[in-house]
Amino acid sequence: MSRITAGIITVGDELTSGDRVDTNSTWLSQRLLELGVETAFHLALPDDRAAIAASLRESAGRVSVLLITGGLGPTEDDLTREALADALGESLMTDEAALRLLRSRFEKRGFEMPRRNLQQAQRPKSASMLSNPVGTAPGLAARLGAAPVYVLPGVPGEMRRMWADHVAPAVRELVNGSDRCHTAWIHSVSLAESKVGEIIEDLMRRGGPVVVGTLVSDYVVSVRVRAAGDGPDVEDLFVTAARTVAERLGVYAFGRDDDTLASVIVRRLKAQSATLVTAESCTGGLVGSMITDVPGASEVYLGGWVTYSNDFKAEFLDVAPETIAHHGAVSGLTADQMAVGALAQTGAAFALAITGVAGPEGGSAAKPVGTVFIALAFVDEDGEPSSFVRHFVFVGDREMVRRRAAITALAMLHFHLANDGMLPEMLGEFRPRVEAEA
Amino acid sequence: MSRITAGIITVGDELTSGDRVDTNSTWLSQRLLELGVETAFHLALPDDRAAIAASLRESAGRVSVLLITGGLGPTEDDLTREALADALGESLMTDEAALRLLRSRFEKRGFEMPRRNLQQAQRPKSASMLSNPVGTAPGLAARLGAAPVYVLPGVPGEMRRMWADHVAPAVRELVNGSDRCHTAWIHSVSLAESKVGEIIEDLMRRGGPVVVGTLVSDYVVSVRVRAAGDGPDVEDLFVTAARTVAERLGVYAFGRDDDTLASVIVRRLKAQSATLVTAESCTGGLVGSMITDVPGASEVYLGGWVTYSNDFKAEFLDVAPETIAHHGAVSGLTADQMAVGALAQTGAAFALAITGVAGPEGGSAAKPVGTVFIALAFVDEDGEPSSFVRHFVFVGDREMVRRRAAITALAMLHFHLANDGMLPEMLGEFRPRVEAEA
Repeated sequence: MSRITAGIITVGDELTSGDRVDTNSTWLSQRLLELGVETAFHLALPDDRAAIAASLRESAGRVSVLLITGGLGPTEDDLTREALADALGESLMTDEAALRLLRSRFEKRGFEMPRRNLQQAQRPKSASMLSNPVGTAPGLAARLGAAPVYVLPGVPGEMRRMWADHVAPAVRELVNGSDRCHTAWIHSVSLAESKVGEIIEDLMRRGGPVVVGTLVSDYVVSVRVRAAGDGPDVEDLFVTAARTVAERLGVYAFGRDDDTLASVIVRRLKAQSATLVTAESCTGGLVGSMITDVPGASEVYLGGWVTYSNDFKAEFLDVAPETIAHHGAVSGLTADQMAVGALAQTGAAFALAITGVAGPEGGSAAKPVGTVFIALAFVDEDGEPSSFVRHFVFVGDREMVRRRAAITALAMLHFHLANDGMLPEMLGEFRPRVEAEA
Repeated sequence: MSRITAGIITVGDELTSGDRVDTNSTWLSQRLLELGVETAFHLALPDDRAAIAASLRESAGRVSVLLITGGLGPTEDDLTREALADALGESLMTDEAALRLLRSRFEKRGFEMPRRNLQQAQRPKSASMLSNPVGTAPGLAARLGAAPVYVLPGVPGEMRRMWADHVAPAVRELVNGSDRCHTAWIHSVSLAESKVGEIIEDLMRRGGPVVVGTLVSDYVVSVRVRAAGDGPDVEDLFVTAARTVAERLGVYAFGRDDDTLASVIVRRLKAQSATLVTAESCTGGLVGSMITDVPGASEVYLGGWVTYSNDFKAEFLDVAPETIAHHGAVSGLTADQMAVGALAQTGAAFALAITGVAGPEGGSAAKPVGTVFIALAFVDEDGEPSSFVRHFVFVGDREMVRRRAAITALAMLHFHLANDGMLPEMLGEFRPRVEAEA
């Protein structure tokens, strides 16, 4: 690891009051580590000019680069510009170029710029502006003592873009080829975190140059392989470790680094020139939304139905009213007919259907909250429609059940595509209790 | 607000490396605020004994109470005990009672206690142990200078339990019946944050017992009204401030506290016994997913279509192929036909349709990335279908455009329901440039 360190200060009352979770510092630390820079601290402060200025002064001497997010908005509690000026011992001035740009942004949309946005065109004398292509607030770049300081908006979409445009290139130069940090992510789905921990237990022991850790989100367990240092030995160990993790996780490992389950599926479908439709009940559009989040999804995703009511299922997907009446809207048969109906009406290659009880109401002894049936319909090698259904019981509140159902549906499609139609055991699958043998 | 302030230090490499998001400090700040204590800072540090000790020494003088989580485990990188001892200028000793308890925990489960757990029974001489009923690591209580210091495990379930058992009672005594904290949220949509800032500018000035701030997420601006202190005067000021904010934001204010745009819409539709369907293109199911996120949405939401491809629009919503051919899939006419088609097929009271260019590809000079048409179709008082369309240009990347489109569609429906069919000016609305007069 290079000896370059970073400090991250995030500004906003909403952070220290607990109204909002700080995700900006997490994201920045990940990006910094990819460039070989370790983060020495995250500091969240309220919208308090004096506290921000004091922290800026104290922190600058301790790290190689200082990043600040938040407090660049157009309201009275946006005080980061002022605090930076205080820390520099300077006053604020108006940057004419920034002001012109800001004004023209509003005019293009037919408005006059409100007076309070004026403050967003201000900067300390020695600082420079960082352009913000996706919002109104330009960022700031300055130097506090020996340390470069970058001030970015708190809005994540804006902050991330400006990190890429302005800060990452500068940090790369700062690091300047000294010790690289290798990072690889191997993403898995439908395996319990403890199971992943078992599978790669020996790799997770500390002591060598390669560090392996895990991170969980919904039913996706991501394994992070990290190694610091240059030289062929370290690189070999790193590459070997990453490959070993992927091999051991086998079919459950769906992607690397920036891959998501949806992006991997879209890629495979494109490669097969295959199309997909969705039929969702309890997930309400979440699966469609995850797939269409992938740029280029339109090449493979035709669309879908959110059949939230029973009438909708019957009328638009041809689910038989008797099926709903006798087996229930939440049943394997209903899920199957939803998928088959969607496939038949569209001529798609694949159809995913989900029906379940997200909660908190609607559960019963036979079908408790968390009960979800997921069906996949597809055209087999003989050109005939085929389908299968899986029964799950997901633990958690409404949001968790919906997210787990959506992820698991995508996982089912992924396994079908990637593993020649063979599904492994999946987390959350319902296993009826086996009677004890007499 | 009482003059009692807190500082929160969270320890762990996984935090500063960005592998894990810090939720402990957020949760603790919420609990502290409920007791009338403001948090002065959140500080996340790596598993670095010297850095932790230095921060402990520096922080203790600045706050009334210091909370630390993390670094109490049985592994090599658990260093918080040592760091606390360093900050106190003491060495570690074994607490015999804690050791006996720890051993017996393992023995009860049929194990001998591993040697590395020994460190969990250690404490600085002047500190005391805090029992942990749900894990192995006891916490620590000490005093650094004038400030009480509480060290808790990083595992959220254990930390929260021990907060309740040991820390909350102590903090309550510290606050000692001084000042309660009142908080109210007023949520608005489709107003620029700077505009909200203008409208409530005088209320946002600092200095009195009532503090007003804003928080933005997508196109929802939430105004937070907070007041510290007991007594009828403070309560009056608080109630008046909250009411004034709501009055001034007028039709743009859609809800309070836990309300979301979707939950308010579901409530209004229920009250009118009205039903809703959706037809989404670029948002891919996001609107349906937001509505169905609300428990009880099934009483008003029948379902919808994700008409991602042109064929889907034509085949299932009866959008005329000539419309798509001559005006484009992204046009006011297409959006209108999607909404009218959805309404006609379902007999719903309301239908929302969205079509647009989310990006990064697909934009043109006439219809740049971010161009979105949103249509609302409904049955008027004479029982006749009616509809209108709005044209927007949203700034941002693919995710931002989709989220803003979804929120704005819900906002349109909300305004229609809440304001007797009259829509105010909406953020993002496209205003063709007015030709300068000759």
